Amino acid sequence: MAVGTVLVTGGTGYIGSFTTLALLQNDYDVVIVDNLYNSSKVVLDRIELISGKRPAFYEVDVTDEASLDKVFAKHPEIDSVIHFAALKAIGESGEIPLEYYHNNVGGGITLLRSMKKANVPNIVFSSSATVYGDATRVPNMIPIPEECPIGPTNTYGHTKVMIETVITDHINAERNRCKKAGQPFEQWNGALLRYFNPCGAHPSGMMGEDPQGVPYNLLPLLGKVATGERESLLVFGDDYASKDGTAIRDYIHVLDLANGHLAALDYLREHKPGVRAWNLGSGRGSTVFEMINAFSKVVGRQLPYKVVERRHGDVLDLTAKPTRANEELKWSTKLTLEDACADLWRWVENNPKGYRQDPPAEFVEALKSTKA
Amino acid sequence: MAVGTVLVTGGTGYIGSFTTLALLQNDYDVVIVDNLYNSSKVVLDRIELISGKRPAFYEVDVTDEASLDKVFAKHPEIDSVIHFAALKAIGESGEIPLEYYHNNVGGGITLLRSMKKANVPNIVFSSSATVYGDATRVPNMIPIPEECPIGPTNTYGHTKVMIETVITDHINAERNRCKKAGQPFEQWNGALLRYFNPCGAHPSGMMGEDPQGVPYNLLPLLGKVATGERESLLVFGDDYASKDGTAIRDYIHVLDLANGHLAALDYLREHKPGVRAWNLGSGRGSTVFEMINAFSKVVGRQLPYKVVERRHGDVLDLTAKPTRANEELKWSTKLTLEDACADLWRWVENNPKGYRQDPPAEFVEALKSTKA
Repeated sequence: MAVGTVLVTGGTGYIGSFTTLALLQNDYDVVIVDNLYNSSKVVLDRIELISGKRPAFYEVDVTDEASLDKVFAKHPEIDSVIHFAALKAIGESGEIPLEYYHNNVGGGITLLRSMKKANVPNIVFSSSATVYGDATRVPNMIPIPEECPIGPTNTYGHTKVMIETVITDHINAERNRCKKAGQPFEQWNGALLRYFNPCGAHPSGMMGEDPQGVPYNLLPLLGKVATGERESLLVFGDDYASKDGTAIRDYIHVLDLANGHLAALDYLREHKPGVRAWNLGSGRGSTVFEMINAFSKVVGRQLPYKVVERRHGDVLDLTAKPTRANEELKWSTKLTLEDACADLWRWVENNPKGYRQDPPAEFVEALKSTKA
Repeated sequence: MAVGTVLVTGGTGYIGSFTTLALLQNDYDVVIVDNLYNSSKVVLDRIELISGKRPAFYEVDVTDEASLDKVFAKHPEIDSVIHFAALKAIGESGEIPLEYYHNNVGGGITLLRSMKKANVPNIVFSSSATVYGDATRVPNMIPIPEECPIGPTNTYGHTKVMIETVITDHINAERNRCKKAGQPFEQWNGALLRYFNPCGAHPSGMMGEDPQGVPYNLLPLLGKVATGERESLLVFGDDYASKDGTAIRDYIHVLDLANGHLAALDYLREHKPGVRAWNLGSGRGSTVFEMINAFSKVVGRQLPYKVVERRHGDVLDLTAKPTRANEELKWSTKLTLEDACADLWRWVENNPKGYRQDPPAEFVEALKSTKA
């Protein structure tokens, strides 16, 4: 008997797939909707290989309300949604903002409308530390607590803030509507999960990040440098006010991040807090140079890099103060940067084509023998 | 030969219809799209009666991208858009936020996507002073300049801020794209017009505000009290920190407001400023009690009112500092509160059913003889 059934939008993407895996491993049933724009259905096989369970899958775009309605109608057992589906390249978001607003904001509104019709009250939203913008401004709020004022510096961040606002207004309105009608209202809840920098892969070497085209995050790019697919890493600015001049981020292993979603979902179901924001980060900041060194160590040789100009919209420091998540969700990161680097390298070295090739046979065997 | 062709969304609504009239009277051609959700096609007859010209009309919802595309395809001469179409009841926005986000934000994004495909570069957006929220907070910024920090206190205000952000990012992205490609970029422009409290009617008695259902703005409600359709006016709070305890607003005659749209459109076409915000207000604040007295004077008897609780999201004072609009747009309000009250009363007294009945024959005759 499942603990509950969760619709996961964007469930074949990087964080979506690891969260799906964690849900299945914790006795939730999962229904995925994904348009496969930046992901592969092959990940469903890997999830099944690792967990022994396969989520239901629908190739549906979250901006398509009629199709969402059909999925909810087919799965009346869905009681919660974890919403990942979105475009996520900060640089690109400034170049084609209407696509970002259409997919992320339009898609979020459509999803909530469909959820309302289907009377699905819980939503866990994939937000981002980007909503804080430059928290080094006066007064300096590094590390960043949830109370830090919102102030995104790019279109991607704006889309996340907008959906946070829509969810907040929607959940509050539903609670008020139910209260006025003398009905129970506590079932309407929303979690706004502000991620810091997700990284790493599954320790089995069977699941990892596999973006289409050129990746734009530090670790996947380092992976491509390590395999020789790219000549060197571009470091965007070494004149920041950090110890080595490069920007500081809070890297969090994707397995820890996936568990944060479970913790938030369980919290919503148990404590029914209304809408609540949580920072999912480790609380430790690392510079770009530190990450290059950590990954180089795992690979066994110094990886080449080239310092270029700062990117518009980038900020000096995004390090989480995860106290609220630690205390309320009883969640904290368990894995280290070294774990993330080792897992990533195992994934990249053995799956240079990502999900477009079979994983090494010995990995599959090793996984089977672990289970047996 | 027309000066230009403007697509007016929501062109049969209150401010949309007066702006359409002003555009036609100033040699612009107008194409209206409106879903007639809260308006009547009869206003097109009145516009024609007054101006001698009739705008093209399409019953199209701004969330319907395919239909918008068809309108642009049929009218390749459209070079600018004035975007009014939106839900606008502050109280209701807190009750059914998803409808507001879908229609206002979703609709705005859809419109901009359709404009981009049709290569229409200029947009004048119907924003609101609501974007400022409570400008009496520290530091007090009454009267409100455009530099006042944004901080809406209700869903309606949030939708306006979101579309302002989408327009800003979109226009900036198009300018950057053109610059990079070595193409002219100055044609991409946006005006964010933050209205204070529109009121009044056409002096001919032939056009005015005609909301479906119960109106929610002060002057239309006073009109219904004056005609006996409503027993008394509800005053939402008399314990504000104003001279008589009621909230202060900056009332602006709809004819002045319509002219502000023309001034902004002309400014975009001539000065090509990119995205620019302007406050359209008179710079004078009036309390609710002052408005009741002013309108009672025109009607000839004291209108009854009842003080009730404050409304959630209402603020003490929204008075404009319209210096930027005065100086840059060479625009300022010309008509007085007394004009607005007299014009409103002429409209309401003689058209108790709004556009659902013919106007008094003598008004039509008077209008014809003025023109002859």
